[in-house]
Amino acid sequence: MPEAASAPTAPAAPRATIGDSEFDRDTALTPREPGVYDIDLSAGWTIISAVNGGYLLAVLGRALADALPHGDPFTISAHYLTASQPGPAVVRTDVVRTGRTLSTGQASLLQYDEQGREVERIRVLASYGDLDALPDDVRTTAKPPAFPPMEHCFGPEDGPAPVDGSSAITDRLMLKLDPSTLGWALGQPSGKGEMRAWFGLADGRDADPLSLLLAVDALPPTAFEIGISGWVPTVELTVHIRCRPAPGPLRVSITTRNLAGGFLEEDAEVWDSADRLVAQSRQLARVRLS
Amino acid sequence: MPEAASAPTAPAAPRATIGDSEFDRDTALTPREPGVYDIDLSAGWTIISAVNGGYLLAVLGRALADALPHGDPFTISAHYLTASQPGPAVVRTDVVRTGRTLSTGQASLLQYDEQGREVERIRVLASYGDLDALPDDVRTTAKPPAFPPMEHCFGPEDGPAPVDGSSAITDRLMLKLDPSTLGWALGQPSGKGEMRAWFGLADGRDADPLSLLLAVDALPPTAFEIGISGWVPTVELTVHIRCRPAPGPLRVSITTRNLAGGFLEEDAEVWDSADRLVAQSRQLARVRLS
Repeated sequence: MPEAASAPTAPAAPRATIGDSEFDRDTALTPREPGVYDIDLSAGWTIISAVNGGYLLAVLGRALADALPHGDPFTISAHYLTASQPGPAVVRTDVVRTGRTLSTGQASLLQYDEQGREVERIRVLASYGDLDALPDDVRTTAKPPAFPPMEHCFGPEDGPAPVDGSSAITDRLMLKLDPSTLGWALGQPSGKGEMRAWFGLADGRDADPLSLLLAVDALPPTAFEIGISGWVPTVELTVHIRCRPAPGPLRVSITTRNLAGGFLEEDAEVWDSADRLVAQSRQLARVRLS
Repeated sequence: MPEAASAPTAPAAPRATIGDSEFDRDTALTPREPGVYDIDLSAGWTIISAVNGGYLLAVLGRALADALPHGDPFTISAHYLTASQPGPAVVRTDVVRTGRTLSTGQASLLQYDEQGREVERIRVLASYGDLDALPDDVRTTAKPPAFPPMEHCFGPEDGPAPVDGSSAITDRLMLKLDPSTLGWALGQPSGKGEMRAWFGLADGRDADPLSLLLAVDALPPTAFEIGISGWVPTVELTVHIRCRPAPGPLRVSITTRNLAGGFLEEDAEVWDSADRLVAQSRQLARVRLS
């Protein structure tokens, strides 16, 4: 089809929209009482058996968007406590401070043990604002990373065999990895802690601030390219949303510079189709050698 | 005196030690009840009239080191709510989860309004561990930034007139700025969002994980080098402590890539005298044009 090189693959079905998509349905919350929400965590966002940390952050982010007077996460810091499972969960929010420009809130995601007691999975602190109210000034020196055109990149569906680590979440994402960061999938990791991919939702829903919380934690771990194939659970993840993303696919670039003492950081930046830096994140993760 | 180029200026008085120094005395807490601590915030760590955010983070970090079973901050995320003042304050901590390797806690710094009611200044989430228990594996690609020798760098005491923005805190710090990031002080900002300095405590106390929380937020704002002279209050600051720093001066390098919509990020990295990356931090700050 006559599309620009950077445009997403045309979907077979009508495109989903913000508010009516798999991502929106799977992060939808049912209010139980003011500030408390029930949700059934979807098994559709799992990697092997683990629920993706970005999906969980989006769930918490949606709860705070409802609980706070401002609707857009500007900065959200999550500490991951125990591993979440698909199934029932509750989000408890607390308004810490409301201001004219920014409001700050806290939220916890909890599930239930065999005795029905609440077990906390994740706790977050976040400051919310209104991205549309920000002035237009931009004095950035950040440049988008070099990306091959999407048709030169590869997703799980392009391999002769499933890519290691692919799982349910791959059906919900449009993920096209830069081949220069795909050596791990061929048994030849580059040794550089880099991972880059074109990113979208498989049903064509465009990005919004909540889906950016997913985007920063949806690529294969940079550890794979360092030659580490073990599990890399997130300890802490902070995301800054810097502007509302334009429609179209995102470019996500993740870098690890320092693997030491059994921990590593992953720095993500997300660029939109208008070449704006829409999100920056950093996480600290543990390296569990397999 | 016959010292190596990178060694600190020899102090006139005997060097202070970890546990017996200005920094330790000014972050010392008085237990009120389990998990609750009183402190008199020192006026010695102010910039103009504002209490330095890194000093405040160190106060919170010390409280959590006492309240949690692990003593070293691995990752600490702070959301700054209202401006702190020198004077009485209380720190309330909450143990979120204790584990074998990591424990997670929450803490709030509060002061009192004219009616004696508590007003929250800062809320933090943090995960603590034992830096000395980490394995020695290092597969880092991070390199120390280029720094001129300390004798080619400049502190507030080297200028013919006090450097703009200098204040009480400058008496407590050994801060020697890379001249290539000092254009702002001469009315000629470089336009690049970079700030680099040799860093230590003026009384010669060596660095530890708590003083690293100060180090990441103690340099002049990178905004000065972008040509912005207004106030740049921190909204959120997350610090990762990656290893226990060796004795001797630190090198702190701060970079801003994206100033947009009235906000900017400051990424700090801190290197010790053994050329190890001991801390990484990122903050989101507001730009208040003057």
